[in-house]
Amino acid sequence: MAKDKKVEQITDMEVDFAQWFTDVCKKAELIDYSSIKGVFIYRPYGYAIWENIQAIMDKEFKKQGVQNVYMPLLIPESLLQKEKDHVEGFAPECAWVTTGGSEPLEERYAIRPTSETLFCEHFANVLQSHRDLPMKYNQWCSVLRWEKTSRPFLRHREFLWQEGHTIHATAEEAKEFTETMLGVYADFCEDVLAMPVTRGQKTDKEKFKGAEATYTIECMMHDRKALQAGTSHYFGDGFARQFEILFADRDNKLKNPHQTSWGVSTRLIGGIIMTHGDNNGLVLPPKIAPVQAVIIPIAAHKEGVLDAAAELKARLEKAGVRVKLDDSDNSMGWKCAEYEMKGVPLRVECGPRDLENGECVLVRRNDREKITVKLENLESAVAEQLQAVHDGLFARAKKNLEDHIYPAYSLEEARELQEKNGGFVKTMWCGELDCELAMKEQAGMSSRCIPFAQEKLSDVCPICGKPAKHMIYWGVAY
Amino acid sequence: MAKDKKVEQITDMEVDFAQWFTDVCKKAELIDYSSIKGVFIYRPYGYAIWENIQAIMDKEFKKQGVQNVYMPLLIPESLLQKEKDHVEGFAPECAWVTTGGSEPLEERYAIRPTSETLFCEHFANVLQSHRDLPMKYNQWCSVLRWEKTSRPFLRHREFLWQEGHTIHATAEEAKEFTETMLGVYADFCEDVLAMPVTRGQKTDKEKFKGAEATYTIECMMHDRKALQAGTSHYFGDGFARQFEILFADRDNKLKNPHQTSWGVSTRLIGGIIMTHGDNNGLVLPPKIAPVQAVIIPIAAHKEGVLDAAAELKARLEKAGVRVKLDDSDNSMGWKCAEYEMKGVPLRVECGPRDLENGECVLVRRNDREKITVKLENLESAVAEQLQAVHDGLFARAKKNLEDHIYPAYSLEEARELQEKNGGFVKTMWCGELDCELAMKEQAGMSSRCIPFAQEKLSDVCPICGKPAKHMIYWGVAY
Repeated sequence: MAKDKKVEQITDMEVDFAQWFTDVCKKAELIDYSSIKGVFIYRPYGYAIWENIQAIMDKEFKKQGVQNVYMPLLIPESLLQKEKDHVEGFAPECAWVTTGGSEPLEERYAIRPTSETLFCEHFANVLQSHRDLPMKYNQWCSVLRWEKTSRPFLRHREFLWQEGHTIHATAEEAKEFTETMLGVYADFCEDVLAMPVTRGQKTDKEKFKGAEATYTIECMMHDRKALQAGTSHYFGDGFARQFEILFADRDNKLKNPHQTSWGVSTRLIGGIIMTHGDNNGLVLPPKIAPVQAVIIPIAAHKEGVLDAAAELKARLEKAGVRVKLDDSDNSMGWKCAEYEMKGVPLRVECGPRDLENGECVLVRRNDREKITVKLENLESAVAEQLQAVHDGLFARAKKNLEDHIYPAYSLEEARELQEKNGGFVKTMWCGELDCELAMKEQAGMSSRCIPFAQEKLSDVCPICGKPAKHMIYWGVAY
Repeated sequence: MAKDKKVEQITDMEVDFAQWFTDVCKKAELIDYSSIKGVFIYRPYGYAIWENIQAIMDKEFKKQGVQNVYMPLLIPESLLQKEKDHVEGFAPECAWVTTGGSEPLEERYAIRPTSETLFCEHFANVLQSHRDLPMKYNQWCSVLRWEKTSRPFLRHREFLWQEGHTIHATAEEAKEFTETMLGVYADFCEDVLAMPVTRGQKTDKEKFKGAEATYTIECMMHDRKALQAGTSHYFGDGFARQFEILFADRDNKLKNPHQTSWGVSTRLIGGIIMTHGDNNGLVLPPKIAPVQAVIIPIAAHKEGVLDAAAELKARLEKAGVRVKLDDSDNSMGWKCAEYEMKGVPLRVECGPRDLENGECVLVRRNDREKITVKLENLESAVAEQLQAVHDGLFARAKKNLEDHIYPAYSLEEARELQEKNGGFVKTMWCGELDCELAMKEQAGMSSRCIPFAQEKLSDVCPICGKPAKHMIYWGVAY
């Protein structure tokens, strides 16, 4: 199949997965480097994927009663410092503004690394009564974290995301909403991105700085490394106390509301690439593909072929398919390679012979299956095959996940399993930080999550031998 | 009508227009102040207006072949300095990042005040051949300008906008596209926001720093001050030369492309408020109103009323109307005042007697006209009345504009006309900066634009007496 590749080859993933990933990001024209290290440009094709993610996810948020807002980019240092754990977690990674116009500022401002502090200050300003609750806000924006290493989509100093922030009258309602939003993310990953997830809770070490509990969805990439794809945090009333957010409850007493926050980022696009991509490039889940089907006329110079192709395009557009017709002079081979590189889920080929027979050929990107369809059934056939691509991608990723979760009963076994197979290693765990650190130091794995779906592998923590509290997943993460 | 006002009254616009404006922004819950001077929070209702503007405008952009991208937030100082006029215009207003994480940066970074330099650097990286042209990019983002004074929506240190940036093979094509985009803005203002515009060109003094020509749409607010609502710039190949943007043309020679940029911002929301608002609050053009119709049941405790109201809501939702049902315990008077304050274009009242008669009552926000309609015609009646609100708003604003454009034949007359009437004063003009400065110093007016629709008022510039080149509009601007 190497002959089908574009002239500019990408590295094979089996040779160098990291280089394959970077090649795909560049050559599928998703991203470009800027002159600042770790800051990337989202090119039209990459940004269109994000727009599709936004459109679908935003509708799901609105079903949950969430309203969009826009908070300031800048956080005064004194505001960021109001919550102790939070500032310790984020201040070391902030970019700081010290000059406004030609004058030095009296207080320096952080570019938001996340906006809990800003939302808290606003909630304190506007919240009055229990009738105002819950307040469910979200914003789509960019945030900055001045990290030392960077990779396209996976670790940017500036990245695009959404951050939801809600306050509720009771702890129960806030906890429930934290879990609801994790469910929204999990369903989105599986139903829209065809990425199977493991749902669970983060350990205290791995939770969000300032949160009481962090829930996570963890995905497994094609190279069997873990990707944290979305998180949802329950804050209790900790921030509300620090920021003096108060409401008059039904009993006329002033109380602090209970709070959540939750977010996903353009990291999801990194996840899509590493879950579904192959040695010919990107493979996009149909629901978020900027182009879902590309029509390639064969022997386009022959009479009637181009007109017929244009008609197919019009029909598919009318049916709501994002479709492109490539009637350029480029060769058939070039075109096939180009749209494979770009991960377009379906190719529609139509030549003079097909048209004579009242047919065209659909080619699926994920498994290259060719399906000859009657032109009169085009719309339903395309819809069917787009679903087949989604299902094929999901099934393959699900198998990859399920095949690579290994139980271990000692730290040494865990280390060996990870070294040999990658994937997730599952063990029992006592819940102590020391054992978590030992796993990191001696087996190179961080805790991924304490899955909601618990199993009892044994009674004891295999690291310290003390009684076990949970079954936990370990892995090497992006 | 004062009795219909909400408990928290707003200042009458005739008493203090500026205070009226701020009251509306706060009390209609469009905006909140942050702890940084000049930086505002876009609250759900204000942000929803922006989302509606974005959705409609983005579709228009896409019809013009524009693709969305996302460029970095930060601009290295050396990059900003590449174009001399541009840096002189913007550097004095930049906020500067000097520390990343715990380390001082080697070079300081400006938070983007506008992104020409970033787009140019990217174009230089990716442009190769005439086949890549035109490149038509846009981004929706926030920008920072560290100005000394601020007002909600009109002058923020951080504001939301879109900035389009395009490059073309020829000067003609770029010029034409500059005008096309001005036309997109003008049509949007008139057809969507019901704000009539004057289209024209900015003087050299008022044009964008670094541009060859700036085109503008100027609106007149209810207090007869001018608001620059959108601008479109033609750059020639000036930036392209400085940034070494090159392409291989059909003749195989390396050439610089010709460039445009164009933008509108959340200032448009300020324009909507000041064009259409009244002493009862906001009045929203129906096409961008977050709630287009609010249903208020009368005597809601009587059997059948709430069910009937819910059914009307479901029917209107199905018909694509953004509708809200207020079945709260608040009084009828409170509800009417609340939704007038919020500028909801139509109120739908239904009480037991209306329902018995198979009717309900529509009340238009702009002129309080009441229309009794048969329930079976609800959908078409609502669509009709929403259009009537739009038309009413446009006609009133158009009259305000047309009634307040005054010809003047001397500087003294111009000064007197502005002092007496506000509005636009139109004169002939020699084209010299000195006369423009004289009008500013002696009559307090800046040049608004050289309208595309020219008239010949006389042969000479009334300021210096030399031969006139253009007819020009002057005004006091926000």
